[in-house]
Amino acid sequence: MRKIKINNLLVVSPMYNKLKTIIDKEELHKNFRFLPEEEMTQEDLVWADAYASFNLKSDYDYSSLKWVHSLGAGVDCFLYKKQWNEDVLLTRTICSFGQRIAEYCLSYILKDLQLHDPFQKLKNQKKWHPLTPGLLNTQKIMVYGTGEIGQTAAKIFSGLGMEVYGVSLTGKNKEYFEEVLTVASHFSRLQEMNYVINTLPLTDQTAHFFDGRIFHHLTDAGFINVGRGASVDDHALIQALNQGQVSFAVLDVFNHEPLPEDHPFWHHPDVHITPHISAVTTPEEGAACYVETLKRIEGNRVLQNKVDFKRGY
Amino acid sequence: MRKIKINNLLVVSPMYNKLKTIIDKEELHKNFRFLPEEEMTQEDLVWADAYASFNLKSDYDYSSLKWVHSLGAGVDCFLYKKQWNEDVLLTRTICSFGQRIAEYCLSYILKDLQLHDPFQKLKNQKKWHPLTPGLLNTQKIMVYGTGEIGQTAAKIFSGLGMEVYGVSLTGKNKEYFEEVLTVASHFSRLQEMNYVINTLPLTDQTAHFFDGRIFHHLTDAGFINVGRGASVDDHALIQALNQGQVSFAVLDVFNHEPLPEDHPFWHHPDVHITPHISAVTTPEEGAACYVETLKRIEGNRVLQNKVDFKRGY
Repeated sequence: MRKIKINNLLVVSPMYNKLKTIIDKEELHKNFRFLPEEEMTQEDLVWADAYASFNLKSDYDYSSLKWVHSLGAGVDCFLYKKQWNEDVLLTRTICSFGQRIAEYCLSYILKDLQLHDPFQKLKNQKKWHPLTPGLLNTQKIMVYGTGEIGQTAAKIFSGLGMEVYGVSLTGKNKEYFEEVLTVASHFSRLQEMNYVINTLPLTDQTAHFFDGRIFHHLTDAGFINVGRGASVDDHALIQALNQGQVSFAVLDVFNHEPLPEDHPFWHHPDVHITPHISAVTTPEEGAACYVETLKRIEGNRVLQNKVDFKRGY
Repeated sequence: MRKIKINNLLVVSPMYNKLKTIIDKEELHKNFRFLPEEEMTQEDLVWADAYASFNLKSDYDYSSLKWVHSLGAGVDCFLYKKQWNEDVLLTRTICSFGQRIAEYCLSYILKDLQLHDPFQKLKNQKKWHPLTPGLLNTQKIMVYGTGEIGQTAAKIFSGLGMEVYGVSLTGKNKEYFEEVLTVASHFSRLQEMNYVINTLPLTDQTAHFFDGRIFHHLTDAGFINVGRGASVDDHALIQALNQGQVSFAVLDVFNHEPLPEDHPFWHHPDVHITPHISAVTTPEEGAACYVETLKRIEGNRVLQNKVDFKRGY
């Protein structure tokens, strides 16, 4: 890898103040500008060698940058349906996303198995009516995406006794998965699944990936989307919920965010909505990953979080 | 251990039919009677060498039995405030109770950390308002009871990154606990705890154990009772909930079961009620443990599930 010299660093984020406090302590002897998104100008971009943010703002010229760093795990805001200048290094944040997403998913799986809603209803009626919760070690789960996030989730789920299957482009086997299937080969296993989780990045191949083709293979399965909203055909999901192919959906990401007020998901009793929080970047973790990446770039060391812009993630 | 000859076995349970089906398949060449509780007579008890049930019925003479087996994990129905004939072997069911109880507790801990209720409220208001869930690896938990069940729970909690403390009579250190404290020494650690779980059996020492003395040391902690209802002072718990020492309570066991209709727990918004289901004995597991215990008795082998009737568990 060719060595990149970085002197002027622009950090644009709603949490710019917290990032500044943490990064200042590192005494990196570089020139930093920390700004909220609405205050960034074209002049800042001309000044900067490096730019860190959750996304790119349209109508700006980013051509003078040497390094762009995504403060989030996903980089579809930078790459999906956009042209990327191959000379610009693109990195993304890797931190406790896998752990966060696994705990998010696990909370809803256990809510389902431990019958939280039925017991809440019985409590409201002051009824004492025993029901037997299900155990994790009798459950099968399909995790779409076997990267950093999918694999951490698989590690945690399998550690608790679940039978975990993966789906990836290559179908290459990975630790913690019973089996990793390809998109082409995985349909036959879907009917056995109790839960289905999407952790896929948004690319041309994954846009509208979860549609009737997949939902028709499910029977009473829980569907959790912690990948990207644009990977789901909302209409097909609502049909699958109403037909019992999907028993409940937990959605953290949406085609349009914030979710529009008139969207039917708000009203559906079997849809749980969270506002894109399953894998938040905390200022502490975001800053730590950013500083580590900067040091690795300057030291010409291997980058675990370099994005392959051709692959799109 | 002196060898016991068992020929006539009486199994009295609401699930007597299912137990019969499973145990018949074992072809044990013994005489069995399977009965529902209301059909058992004194004559059955005179006939039997061994008796398996969830409890003893009052006004019956059990003196001709050689072996009594509890179909549940707890034996307070057999021992607490009762005289036990020292010549009668008492065993209890050990199966997936630890796993069941750990998953039960974990489901409510994750419901709390992942903000299920706040997000449900926001959904009802169609509000998109990001909040950051808490992670398990920043949580401290105190588990009362470090036996089979407490230790399995500690294994699962610590495996997910929680800092797990135990409380036992002896304070003897055990695997998966950061530290095991005695009842006398544990108060000073209570204020740090995010969650407190009771798995203690009911004995003279644990009756009304959770009262103001313990709750006063807590700050905004979740309290989960999967031990016995009689270990909790209900009035003190409600006070602790109202004063914020306890942020929520999850109760699976009660002083009186079913929980009486006029009990204030039914109305308290921060109390979750389940009808004694956190550690159910399934017919399959109950039969397997019973048959294994019978074979061990006949083979004069070590019994892991023999009850120390002096200790009371």
